[in-house]
Amino acid sequence: MTTQRRSVLKKLFLSFVSVTGIGLGAKATSSPGPQKEVDNIVYDQDVPLFSGCTKLGNLIFIAGKGAHVEPFEIKAHTEIVLKELEKELVKAGSSMDKVLKVSVFLNDINDYKGMNEVYKGRFGKKPPVRTTVAVAQGGVPGNSLVEMDCMAYI
Amino acid sequence: MTTQRRSVLKKLFLSFVSVTGIGLGAKATSSPGPQKEVDNIVYDQDVPLFSGCTKLGNLIFIAGKGAHVEPFEIKAHTEIVLKELEKELVKAGSSMDKVLKVSVFLNDINDYKGMNEVYKGRFGKKPPVRTTVAVAQGGVPGNSLVEMDCMAYI
Amino acid sequence: MTTQRRSVLKKLFLSFVSVTGIGLGAKATSSPGPQKEVDNIVYDQDVPLFSGCTKLGNLIFIAGKGAHVEPFEIKAHTEIVLKELEKELVKAGSSMDKVLKVSVFLNDINDYKGMNEVYKGRFGKKPPVRTTVAVAQGGVPGNSLVEMDCMAYI
Repeated sequence: MTTQRRSVLKKLFLSFVSVTGIGLGAKATSSPGPQKEVDNIVYDQDVPLFSGCTKLGNLIFIAGKGAHVEPFEIKAHTEIVLKELEKELVKAGSSMDKVLKVSVFLNDINDYKGMNEVYKGRFGKKPPVRTTVAVAQGGVPGNSLVEMDCMAYI
Repeated sequence: MTTQRRSVLKKLFLSFVSVTGIGLGAKATSSPGPQKEVDNIVYDQDVPLFSGCTKLGNLIFIAGKGAHVEPFEIKAHTEIVLKELEKELVKAGSSMDKVLKVSVFLNDINDYKGMNEVYKGRFGKKPPVRTTVAVAQGGVPGNSLVEMDCMAYI
Repeated sequence: MTTQRRSVLKKLFLSFVSVTGIGLGAKATSSPGPQKEVDNIVYDQDVPLFSGCTKLGNLIFIAGKGAHVEPFEIKAHTEIVLKELEKELVKAGSSMDKVLKVSVFLNDINDYKGMNEVYKGRFGKKPPVRTTVAVAQGGVPGNSLVEMDCMAYI
């Protein structure tokens, strides 16, 4: 009986090692870990150029978004860009509230205030960090007055 | 006795399954995972504009920092900006040594060398990666000669 | 015997608690978690300036790469920069396929199309997100026509 009991204990022990072993292994070297997912791929002559969104685990990266339509006015363009970001975020299972960091590239530093007027409050009560600079005049592709990208989570 | 023993073993087994089950579940789908924390929110007319720092799990994001006081000279401004970054990092439980990536936006590419003189060595012996460009003259908000943001960890 | 058996079970139980305890602890507060690794440190007068690559867990950050040689032509410079990124990625155990986000800073917005021609398809079928802007003319250090950095994973 003693032997048998030990044998049961031993089996039990091995069984747990195995279970927890899988768990630990997944965090160490044996498992490949989370893999990238992408969405809204933009092609250039049928060749993949960039994605609108990439995801790794719970992290989400949204491509730089610009506005390319009339009116070429900062508030209108900021509105378009924010909506584009939100669309990608929601599609990826995230939201404006879950944005961690935003990069803002203005066409003209004089648009800083106008951009802020539309931007403020759009990311909830706990807004992301932000870095804003004005690049070269005409430096945002497609003549957009502002380009924004962001990092978020799910 | 045998039955009783088995019952004890069974309970023990279930107990472990439960414990490790919780652990695995937390990494899978049932748990919401880490949530964003923010600090030093900047308001525009009482509306949240951006945070000085956001945190997700062990990752930290610091907002773009500029210098907006006399003297308007690159070494003085670089010093101010680095101190601002450090203040946010320390407050968030991180440090200059734990910065992973820095973005540097200069007002003038001719300030590259002066910025480096103050910047070098400030992030310890294992410094972060860095990307430096000069934007439009006057392109950093508030007439700062340099703006920097960073990503770090705890 | 019963006591002895209980004692064995108790030891077994504690043993498991200890094992799984370590596992949970590593994810909670008691463990320091993943630490930064760096590679290809650039020094300025023997003082660490920045790294070519930093790593935290499975995340990788590559420094901004420029091209500083003849010919000063966008396709040639884009080719050099992409190769530099790839070199760092591979050295870090990652690859172009595993890039999550790329930032592209052009010297001239008129080089946008030429850059794309070399860039497209270089990051595989599931390309990273991208943000592209043109900074000040001459705004990329070392007169490079383009600078790129990226975030990736292993």
